[in-house]
Amino acid sequence: MEIEVVRIGQRLVRDDRVTTHVALVSRAFGAKKIFMTEINPEIKDTLRKINETWGGNFSVEFIEKWKPIIKKKKEENFKIIHLSMYGEKINDAQEKIRKEKKLLVVVGAEKVPREIYEMADYNIGIGSQPHSEISALAILLDRIQEGQQFEKEFPDAKRKIIPTKVGKNVQVKETRD
Amino acid sequence: MEIEVVRIGQRLVRDDRVTTHVALVSRAFGAKKIFMTEINPEIKDTLRKINETWGGNFSVEFIEKWKPIIKKKKEENFKIIHLSMYGEKINDAQEKIRKEKKLLVVVGAEKVPREIYEMADYNIGIGSQPHSEISALAILLDRIQEGQQFEKEFPDAKRKIIPTKVGKNVQVKETRD
Repeated sequence: MEIEVVRIGQRLVRDDRVTTHVALVSRAFGAKKIFMTEINPEIKDTLRKINETWGGNFSVEFIEKWKPIIKKKKEENFKIIHLSMYGEKINDAQEKIRKEKKLLVVVGAEKVPREIYEMADYNIGIGSQPHSEISALAILLDRIQEGQQFEKEFPDAKRKIIPTKVGKNVQVKETRD
Repeated sequence: MEIEVVRIGQRLVRDDRVTTHVALVSRAFGAKKIFMTEINPEIKDTLRKINETWGGNFSVEFIEKWKPIIKKKKEENFKIIHLSMYGEKINDAQEKIRKEKKLLVVVGAEKVPREIYEMADYNIGIGSQPHSEISALAILLDRIQEGQQFEKEFPDAKRKIIPTKVGKNVQVKETRD
């Protein structure tokens, strides 16, 4: 399954950390790319450093407007999943979504334009209580990949964690050239 | 299963939003209570308002130090789960954790004291890649409750969402007295 994410909104500086966490979750949970509007350029640098240390080639792309990317991805046969606390229950929708091949997940900040609900192939609620776009995205990606995203290797990592019951075990591979 | 959460750390003002999201995830994913050190008192008010609108009686308790609460909960037969990217894989540990009756989940900010690894009954990694304490907590709670937390009612809600495929459907019950 090919997964990309688009983060819409974030008008406030105080949302910087939240947007960074949305990008980190996208990467750690197997998405290839995140598209972002109106963000602090430092995020791109943060993610580049994370790739360098922990592997993989997750990418961040800045966009001016959200609508053209959604239209383009629809033309490329991506299904659009919009996360919203008002949406259909993930417990009911997950089996159908697992069968999709290409997904673009839309993660909004507090208010999103009404139009997104109409453009989406799925409007999905991760529970119907307020929590966080970070947790909503994580649960969606975990459910549709059935936890298999955590078994994947991130290639060319300098540091790799060996899971352990107590303490920390990190394999360090520094290459010299 | 009875679940409580303790948030340790957060020394920076920029972490306020992240800490609020940790509390919201705790509530939305079925924990009864969160203990917090060093936080902005507004969080308590935010959560009180969320309870008023969306139901339930999730509580926030401020603590001076993290160690006494962990010791006390251990005496009350809670198992301590510490979330850490270095820990044992959730994919491997979840079946065992599902059998526990009472859990205290420890959610750290960036650095946590070494001692926590030793005091914990479980050190659990939600993947071995950096992401967010918000997503880590959400995945843990979702996995160990197998999604059933989203089927629970939050009593005495003024507003209740009826999940729907497009748009928003909210039941409003304002009581007059």
